[in-house]
Amino acid sequence: MPGSDVVILRIGHRPERDQRVTTHVGLTARALGAQGMYLAASDKGVVQSIRDVVDRWGGNFFCQDNVKWRSCIRDWKAQGGTVIHLTMYGLNLPEVIGEIRNHRKILVIVGAEKVPGEIFGLADYNVAVTSQPHSEISSLALFLDHFFSGQELNNEFCGARIRIIPSRAGKQTEET
Amino acid sequence: MPGSDVVILRIGHRPERDQRVTTHVGLTARALGAQGMYLAASDKGVVQSIRDVVDRWGGNFFCQDNVKWRSCIRDWKAQGGTVIHLTMYGLNLPEVIGEIRNHRKILVIVGAEKVPGEIFGLADYNVAVTSQPHSEISSLALFLDHFFSGQELNNEFCGARIRIIPSRAGKQTEET
Repeated sequence: MPGSDVVILRIGHRPERDQRVTTHVGLTARALGAQGMYLAASDKGVVQSIRDVVDRWGGNFFCQDNVKWRSCIRDWKAQGGTVIHLTMYGLNLPEVIGEIRNHRKILVIVGAEKVPGEIFGLADYNVAVTSQPHSEISSLALFLDHFFSGQELNNEFCGARIRIIPSRAGKQTEET
Repeated sequence: MPGSDVVILRIGHRPERDQRVTTHVGLTARALGAQGMYLAASDKGVVQSIRDVVDRWGGNFFCQDNVKWRSCIRDWKAQGGTVIHLTMYGLNLPEVIGEIRNHRKILVIVGAEKVPGEIFGLADYNVAVTSQPHSEISSLALFLDHFFSGQELNNEFCGARIRIIPSRAGKQTEET
């Protein structure tokens, strides 16, 4: 999204179990206006899946694995960025999103099942999307949609090789 | 949510591959105000996971497997309900959600990778949450949040045995 810099940091990823969910996290981030995803694990499969989508569907979303989460968070803050941790234990999204929208450089930490306790202290905001158990994918989607006030739903992706022509019923695509 | 009746119909579920994603679909539906999920496949694992959450975290969300999708859709329509199919090929959410909000009895079809072409014709609305590839979990989350205008983020769940006390940093729970 123009004027903002939102990047995901995915932690706790286990390649043998989380590939699909982490790929959904990355694709959701891309579709809903984030610039890229740092992955705090080694997983070329996830990186390749996301690059394949970018290659066909356009835009400049990046995906980088083997990122060390502590230094990623430290560097982000050193550059004046704000760190958001999505967790069901945090403050509810509607209460804090107005304040968070004042920041333009946002790192969104998306954990898998186990998150080191240290993360709660490192984050500037611990944000809950309801205090109910559901999915890090839906939490991220709602966070981004509220952060961008729904404007991201009309994003265009430059350099796409395939595009969908929205229709009432059926599948219409355009390839270039 | 009071005054509305929103139920999910999950189709294309393959137990050997989709258990985790379908469980996330069900938990997202529950957390964001839907009444229940019909699963067009046999998978007691998914049903049990969701029931375990309902048992601990409250509310009356139901999950029923072995549902035949054709008769489920037919019965829903016969009862005056509206059928929404979430698909990247449909009309974009912001364009149609205002009209959809006029309906109170909504069946939301959430497909996995392959969806029978017939579904596009059976649905009253084919709705895209962006025309980009991402995740059925994030599509469902955004659909429900827009349908309920964000009010569902403050839902309370009756009969919960565990409750989170939202906090700025850390984990606080209350068990009853």
